[in-house]
Amino acid sequence: MMIKTPVTPGSSQRVTSHDVSREAGVSQSAVSRAFTPGARISPEMRQRVLDAAQRLGYKPNAIARSLVTQRSGIVALIVGELHNPFYPQALSQFAQALEARGKRALLLTHDVHRDIQETLEAASSYQIEAAIVFPTRLGSTAPSLGDVSQGGVPVLLFNRHLPGHDLLSVACDNYAGGRLAAQVLLDSGARKLAFVGGDPDTSTHQDRLNGFVERLSESGLSPLATPSLSFQYDWGVQATLNLHGALAGGSAGDGDRDWPDAIFGANDIIAIGILDALHMLGRRVPEEVSVIGFDDIQESARLAYRLTTIRQPLEAMIEDALAALDDPQPGHGPRLHPGELIWRDTVRAAKG
Amino acid sequence: MMIKTPVTPGSSQRVTSHDVSREAGVSQSAVSRAFTPGARISPEMRQRVLDAAQRLGYKPNAIARSLVTQRSGIVALIVGELHNPFYPQALSQFAQALEARGKRALLLTHDVHRDIQETLEAASSYQIEAAIVFPTRLGSTAPSLGDVSQGGVPVLLFNRHLPGHDLLSVACDNYAGGRLAAQVLLDSGARKLAFVGGDPDTSTHQDRLNGFVERLSESGLSPLATPSLSFQYDWGVQATLNLHGALAGGSAGDGDRDWPDAIFGANDIIAIGILDALHMLGRRVPEEVSVIGFDDIQESARLAYRLTTIRQPLEAMIEDALAALDDPQPGHGPRLHPGELIWRDTVRAAKG
Repeated sequence: MMIKTPVTPGSSQRVTSHDVSREAGVSQSAVSRAFTPGARISPEMRQRVLDAAQRLGYKPNAIARSLVTQRSGIVALIVGELHNPFYPQALSQFAQALEARGKRALLLTHDVHRDIQETLEAASSYQIEAAIVFPTRLGSTAPSLGDVSQGGVPVLLFNRHLPGHDLLSVACDNYAGGRLAAQVLLDSGARKLAFVGGDPDTSTHQDRLNGFVERLSESGLSPLATPSLSFQYDWGVQATLNLHGALAGGSAGDGDRDWPDAIFGANDIIAIGILDALHMLGRRVPEEVSVIGFDDIQESARLAYRLTTIRQPLEAMIEDALAALDDPQPGHGPRLHPGELIWRDTVRAAKG
Repeated sequence: MMIKTPVTPGSSQRVTSHDVSREAGVSQSAVSRAFTPGARISPEMRQRVLDAAQRLGYKPNAIARSLVTQRSGIVALIVGELHNPFYPQALSQFAQALEARGKRALLLTHDVHRDIQETLEAASSYQIEAAIVFPTRLGSTAPSLGDVSQGGVPVLLFNRHLPGHDLLSVACDNYAGGRLAAQVLLDSGARKLAFVGGDPDTSTHQDRLNGFVERLSESGLSPLATPSLSFQYDWGVQATLNLHGALAGGSAGDGDRDWPDAIFGANDIIAIGILDALHMLGRRVPEEVSVIGFDDIQESARLAYRLTTIRQPLEAMIEDALAALDDPQPGHGPRLHPGELIWRDTVRAAKG
């Protein structure tokens, strides 16, 4: 079962922790602590054990240990499409945060057209300690791997929630973020505001839309239009062309009486598509039209875009998700983190 | 050890494959085949077993099985920084390709400043079948998990190779790609060509540079400049500003006698930084300067860039990598796949 290393290329005999304790002249419990993340052991002692293990070519088998301890140290990360750069970034930060805790990420991809429950149960056969589900469409039934109080595996939804279900979930406060986007655009003097949404079946889309619309209505306004389709660049381009073509009752350029003076893109990838389309239409940003996004992905800071957006506090959200999984207490609704406004160049400065 | 499912919320008794075979009225070997990816069993038989397993809340334990079969079905994917969108894309395609083979990806992040061997050995304690190392700096010693012929775990370098070592590796033919980039720019009439490189300690950078320089020398030319630093957007911007400032002996705008008429960005992220910087400098692409990249990431197709580039045949490279791991035969040097020229709008049409 041991995987041989260059240290003992020819060795056919299995090295045990007993051999290591003898070689290092320490107790077996010291050897076990040396290989247990977070275990209490002095740096000197750990080094002494690691040196002996290195000399003998010993490596502990985390999987075999997991069958005894029931703690595999493996957490499933279930991701949908990675088109939106926000999620690869979240994925690698999650993997790093898990590793900092001596755990590992088992990566599973999920086809949004399949039932998330199937993917969860496929993951569960790998002795996972927990499962984290990245944004994807959710059916009306809550995905589950059993009652945690009865030995089931905790499942946490990241940046999604399922209204009316007792599910662990950590998300950005998307409703408040939608309100903030409306506030910023109203303060800039905008009065003809449009929302270009993402996948309408996601809580992310719905919460951002609701916050946006409700804040507008408090100022006696309603959105010029709220088309939605998917969280993708091409959709941001298409929706913007539609807004200018259709709303003007003809091709772009037929006067701008009914054109938006501000557009909220449901995420940064959509907003970047909006900026590219406005550039193509010859509409000046922010002089003629303001644009704001959501997420603050790396691209948004680039010279070509300089997108004003609402940043998701990714690091805090990930820490909170891992803390929630250490002591799962479902039933308190999503754990929300406020978004942060990042001022760049795509929203007009506030008027008078 | 069984993870309870909603089907048997209260059950404390473990359901075995024997129970399932009885419930389904089939042999235990049929039950085992039904849960073994790729095993020969009729769809009807498999469905019958899965229905019975579903009724009883049975789930096979892949990890426990792996201790018997020595085949965990787990393949480690070791990734460095995911700044370059090419790699998240490769990562999710790898995970999907593994799942199509009934395997799973264990994701490990690697700090480029640490020894890759440490990360490999951390992965090896999870009973992995193989390890795939994504581009990262490599020391002069070949990372290894022992002699495969003696039960070691095969390690494959993806899109990197280590000259002079018997290591499994699959890569795009970066040398030929560098030659192709030079050829395309020369055909466009360019005579003052620059190369903006990535991390100089990587084979990817070195091979693309060598191919580029050698093709130029065959036309009696040498590059105007070949600065290198890292495979990042900010570097592409900085290098372009340097090329125009330093080479003109002053700030950009002091006449363009010594400015490049074509720039090869070592990857698309760098090339996109080059395009943004040229836009800022007011140099027209492709009329005054042509730009070509490498990878063909999603962004390169966007309206704002329309980058002409050399596409890495990612799908073929992934299939080849997994085939190589099924039957590891090191020592034949890297398995190379030719890049494909993607014509867009950033290179002048060929002259005369």
